[in-house]
Amino acid sequence: MSGEVGIGIVGYGIMGKAHSYGYTVAPVMRRLRHRPRLRVISGRDKQKVDAAAVAYGVDGSVTDWRELVRRPEVDIVDICTPPGTHAEIAIAAAAAGKAVICEKPLAVTYPQAASAVDAAGKARVLNAVGFNYRSLPAVSLMKRMIGEGAVGKIRLLRATWLSDEFVDPTIPFDWRFDRSMGGTTIADLGSHLIDLATWMAGPIAEVSGQSETFIRQRSDKAVTVDDASAALVRFESGARGALEMARVAVRRPCDFTIEVNGDRGTLVFEYARLNELLYGDAGDRPELYGMRRIRAEQQSHPYAADWWPIGQGVGYGSSFVNHLGDLLDRWPDGPWEPDFAQGAAVQAVCDAIERSAAESRWVDVREIVG
Amino acid sequence: MSGEVGIGIVGYGIMGKAHSYGYTVAPVMRRLRHRPRLRVISGRDKQKVDAAAVAYGVDGSVTDWRELVRRPEVDIVDICTPPGTHAEIAIAAAAAGKAVICEKPLAVTYPQAASAVDAAGKARVLNAVGFNYRSLPAVSLMKRMIGEGAVGKIRLLRATWLSDEFVDPTIPFDWRFDRSMGGTTIADLGSHLIDLATWMAGPIAEVSGQSETFIRQRSDKAVTVDDASAALVRFESGARGALEMARVAVRRPCDFTIEVNGDRGTLVFEYARLNELLYGDAGDRPELYGMRRIRAEQQSHPYAADWWPIGQGVGYGSSFVNHLGDLLDRWPDGPWEPDFAQGAAVQAVCDAIERSAAESRWVDVREIVG
Amino acid sequence: MSGEVGIGIVGYGIMGKAHSYGYTVAPVMRRLRHRPRLRVISGRDKQKVDAAAVAYGVDGSVTDWRELVRRPEVDIVDICTPPGTHAEIAIAAAAAGKAVICEKPLAVTYPQAASAVDAAGKARVLNAVGFNYRSLPAVSLMKRMIGEGAVGKIRLLRATWLSDEFVDPTIPFDWRFDRSMGGTTIADLGSHLIDLATWMAGPIAEVSGQSETFIRQRSDKAVTVDDASAALVRFESGARGALEMARVAVRRPCDFTIEVNGDRGTLVFEYARLNELLYGDAGDRPELYGMRRIRAEQQSHPYAADWWPIGQGVGYGSSFVNHLGDLLDRWPDGPWEPDFAQGAAVQAVCDAIERSAAESRWVDVREIVG
Amino acid sequence: MSGEVGIGIVGYGIMGKAHSYGYTVAPVMRRLRHRPRLRVISGRDKQKVDAAAVAYGVDGSVTDWRELVRRPEVDIVDICTPPGTHAEIAIAAAAAGKAVICEKPLAVTYPQAASAVDAAGKARVLNAVGFNYRSLPAVSLMKRMIGEGAVGKIRLLRATWLSDEFVDPTIPFDWRFDRSMGGTTIADLGSHLIDLATWMAGPIAEVSGQSETFIRQRSDKAVTVDDASAALVRFESGARGALEMARVAVRRPCDFTIEVNGDRGTLVFEYARLNELLYGDAGDRPELYGMRRIRAEQQSHPYAADWWPIGQGVGYGSSFVNHLGDLLDRWPDGPWEPDFAQGAAVQAVCDAIERSAAESRWVDVREIVG
Repeated sequence: MSGEVGIGIVGYGIMGKAHSYGYTVAPVMRRLRHRPRLRVISGRDKQKVDAAAVAYGVDGSVTDWRELVRRPEVDIVDICTPPGTHAEIAIAAAAAGKAVICEKPLAVTYPQAASAVDAAGKARVLNAVGFNYRSLPAVSLMKRMIGEGAVGKIRLLRATWLSDEFVDPTIPFDWRFDRSMGGTTIADLGSHLIDLATWMAGPIAEVSGQSETFIRQRSDKAVTVDDASAALVRFESGARGALEMARVAVRRPCDFTIEVNGDRGTLVFEYARLNELLYGDAGDRPELYGMRRIRAEQQSHPYAADWWPIGQGVGYGSSFVNHLGDLLDRWPDGPWEPDFAQGAAVQAVCDAIERSAAESRWVDVREIVG
Repeated sequence: MSGEVGIGIVGYGIMGKAHSYGYTVAPVMRRLRHRPRLRVISGRDKQKVDAAAVAYGVDGSVTDWRELVRRPEVDIVDICTPPGTHAEIAIAAAAAGKAVICEKPLAVTYPQAASAVDAAGKARVLNAVGFNYRSLPAVSLMKRMIGEGAVGKIRLLRATWLSDEFVDPTIPFDWRFDRSMGGTTIADLGSHLIDLATWMAGPIAEVSGQSETFIRQRSDKAVTVDDASAALVRFESGARGALEMARVAVRRPCDFTIEVNGDRGTLVFEYARLNELLYGDAGDRPELYGMRRIRAEQQSHPYAADWWPIGQGVGYGSSFVNHLGDLLDRWPDGPWEPDFAQGAAVQAVCDAIERSAAESRWVDVREIVG
Repeated sequence: MSGEVGIGIVGYGIMGKAHSYGYTVAPVMRRLRHRPRLRVISGRDKQKVDAAAVAYGVDGSVTDWRELVRRPEVDIVDICTPPGTHAEIAIAAAAAGKAVICEKPLAVTYPQAASAVDAAGKARVLNAVGFNYRSLPAVSLMKRMIGEGAVGKIRLLRATWLSDEFVDPTIPFDWRFDRSMGGTTIADLGSHLIDLATWMAGPIAEVSGQSETFIRQRSDKAVTVDDASAALVRFESGARGALEMARVAVRRPCDFTIEVNGDRGTLVFEYARLNELLYGDAGDRPELYGMRRIRAEQQSHPYAADWWPIGQGVGYGSSFVNHLGDLLDRWPDGPWEPDFAQGAAVQAVCDAIERSAAESRWVDVREIVG
Repeated sequence: MSGEVGIGIVGYGIMGKAHSYGYTVAPVMRRLRHRPRLRVISGRDKQKVDAAAVAYGVDGSVTDWRELVRRPEVDIVDICTPPGTHAEIAIAAAAAGKAVICEKPLAVTYPQAASAVDAAGKARVLNAVGFNYRSLPAVSLMKRMIGEGAVGKIRLLRATWLSDEFVDPTIPFDWRFDRSMGGTTIADLGSHLIDLATWMAGPIAEVSGQSETFIRQRSDKAVTVDDASAALVRFESGARGALEMARVAVRRPCDFTIEVNGDRGTLVFEYARLNELLYGDAGDRPELYGMRRIRAEQQSHPYAADWWPIGQGVGYGSSFVNHLGDLLDRWPDGPWEPDFAQGAAVQAVCDAIERSAAESRWVDVREIVG
């Protein structure tokens, strides 16, 4: 390890905890070129942020993220706040010359996201978006296998994210239900699907979306985000896709799946079995017709050598360890992936789906990007 | 059993075999009010239709379906030919005063289907369409549970049918690839999904579809049907749906799923486990969070008492036994379900999806129905 | 088809129904050399046996099985009564020169079973035992693959059969709880496991068993059979096995599994997914580490061409169709499999487990066979 | 947090890494009363142990475990070496007045294990054995539910651990194949099963075991451990069990399952779905017949509040975080669970199975304990 990198974490909620977990675990599981040092964490509630600093092993805490951004010992600003604040903080951090890691979605509109891209570009700082699911071993293996031709040319892609977070109508109104503060279901859940879909199958050209808000009032306030949305998708390659995301699917806690069908094979990832990948190879002997369940922990698989013996399995946390570990390994020269440009590209598709649903028509993503 | 009903089967292919299986097995498994007697089977190849008559236990055979339709000993004409011929035969059979059972889809266009509805209506003959999957025990249980309020008000419905029937580009051109003879993937696979969706969640008001033909030539002829399609759906109730059907999904032999999410629960049917139903109840104790796997063979479940001890399981064939058995039990007074009117309603949605995909816009089903 | 074979079915209960289903369906699904004709069915309750004759399509009925055995038009006596009566009927049928198909277990003790073997041998009649699960397509494929070397040399075999048939302590006493009338759990459920184990891995040399009766009184009578048993097994080949069978496993309706581990592969059958087979091949590329789920309906698979398009699936009933169809195809020359000798060999292992459990020691199967 | 506790880790292999992970993560995920401080790590290879110290965040390293044991800043000695060394180190650590955490199995024979129990007792030091699987959330929930009566009185228990670690005959001889250095399959894999079985169903009274070594030579040396073993088990309560453990099951990387059937319910844990628990309740409405898949991440479930939002899932590592976190929370007053006495009780059952297999007879565990 050739030195320490100073980290400042903005936000001590579940994402702040997840990123702290990632920074803490990465050096134990893999030989990093740079050891992260958690220098400072910010949050508006002094008592809570102090407690988080102790728990997460952070040297100190502040109640204003602007102070964190200014601190010279902070090399990387890691933004773990709600979506509505992402772009502003990212722009400020870039302006201060800091590398920036921003939780997804990068912003709440494409123009906002584009501003963040510009800011990072002008400041020439490393920048990354927290599309952590790419770094789950099995998802990473799926991408690798596609790259190696395991499914041939992709024709169809389908992905769903079903959650029941909003089923209960008595959940009081908060920022999650307020469009101006962020938080469409398209962006919250769908941004992961869109990121993975474009990573695996290339850019999305056009979308036809639909959205619905089934519980339109909470705490006597109008809910301005969608409870559930879906989109048909045309990729630039000619492949076709179908995406669905919902926060009103009873007893679906976090059921995320992604499948690609190519001319030579099928690959399927189901989050409920996150250490596995289903693979159907059109070239297999007919007598073996069916799909394999690959245990994505074999030593040759992505990240496998860093973790446990085969069959033991990793959880959600591993995605942060792997992603943040990869970023630290590429400090300070980069490149970092996925970067703000990808975050903005995803946001453009989110905006296109939102517009398409509002206007009941196909929307070309170039309408958004301009 | 109060008497015999004479059956004439048009077509000796896989559907003719499946229906023969159904008629043969129904009396063994359940106490029918009327025993079916297989009077005559028709097919153009004399040798093959003769062999089929022997195998299926049919009294005799003819090479022209028109003769079958005329036979006085035939009470019910059961049409098991390719889709392009359905409407013509159905209309002729109705005109001859026969009850008609027609394999799905009822026709290859909505106007054709509407003609069949008219013909049956004018002739006042019983009529049914072979949406056999309704009669799988677990699917039937799903419908019953929805009716009893197990999921509350349906908000979302998703259904897929993935097959690899068309993956191999060397399959020679035949009627399945010729739009005029029938056979879009929307109608072939999707008609089942649409039938079940409307049965469970009510009429579909509007659709946005997309279709693609990946293998555009076979045997040097242009393929004029879709390899894969998908549709966003708005139900009249306000519920939203997403349907997908494909015949180019490698190593997906017949993977049909349907899920509904209501305000109080979730139900999921997956064909690969066709004797089971997943059920998530929002009212369950939180400590039991998750979904149950109901073994749809308990004595109180639909059709269960006719079949085997719990856990032994039925297969695809049971759907024909159950459906045809139900029709025979309602002979000669009816009503029969699903009838031609439902077959035409399904065809209207198929046509709407096809038009929507061709014109890249939402299509109101009333545009089709006129 | 070269002619009819006259069948007499002894017993109209669930097994009588299942066999009737098999005889009725076999000619529809496959081209049989001989068409079965259901000549007569016997049962003590005249009204019920008459109704069964009508339902199952049997020409006539009698209330005394001895009369059925005597009937000249009966070529094959098919015994579907409770176990305690099997040997007596089989012996009488053989003495009358009839071919005999006997439901499992062949008898309630090894000596009884051996008498049936002797009787059939002396009479030189074809004889078979209803180990129907061999004829499920996936189980049959498993046997074929083992024969082709897919797992190499078998080292370990494990099989379980879990049912909840006896969980409810208020079920009144009947023959199932009376050892003299048949019915240990070892024989009822375990006989299938033992038959499959020996079919796949060869003869069993020694066993160590344990048995327990948790509900010792029903209707104030002493239960004299086991609720659950298990056995360690040494095969003559040196392979090792573990078998378990229970009728007191709550919410396990009929959960039967069998797995073999050889030096080159693993094969697993799970009844809950009866159209599939799991296969792990030690020779696969490491990057594909895991097991395949073979859909045992590919055209090259056993029985697949007789049934439905791939992915549609068969149920429990298919085992009877396939087994009885195979027997009819080998009429009148044989050989029939599995035969009484195999039925007796299975019974010897059942008796060895029972003795082992009673005496708390390993029992060599030769102790039973003498 | 009221202070730091000094930890000394003996061994830097995979278990040393897993425990380091546990100590590092525990403070991030939960509010510990005592923060662990990794003071020193020992290992014979200076370069490797130094690298491990850096990676795992340990203050320093030594090449002799005896020095680690002597260090005053070490409060807890955590033994992560191969089994053959456990007892000696544990005894020395206790003698030095240190609390001891020892990886499983506690020793390679019962007498050795009993010596460790005595040593800890005389020194009055806290002591624990690393039966980490107890601390997986779903396994912990299974224990809690059994305690709350979810299955009623346990009648049957079955547990298996299938691995393919030893399938390849070209793996060279090392300590894992040498009985004197530790390592039966019974102890390596089975000790976890025995620990969980006794935790859930009470003490084991008697066993009948079988063992086999299929690959008897490696690197021209005789293998003196079993490749696979199984045991029938009688619990003191009268319940019956069946255990199986194997390291020669092809493509079974680590397939551990445990199921209990009580008079009122069934619970099943399958490691391949480690965040879930199957539950069948005999008291459920018959129409809902089947088992639930409980997502063991609901906020009320053990450890759930420390980890991620429901549905995201934890992996193998969580067991160490949870177990070590529990021990730290009970520092310095205890009690610690499972302790050396439990470790010795498990070892007694391992020895009983080994003896039973060697002598082909049932062995009462009291024969071992004396």
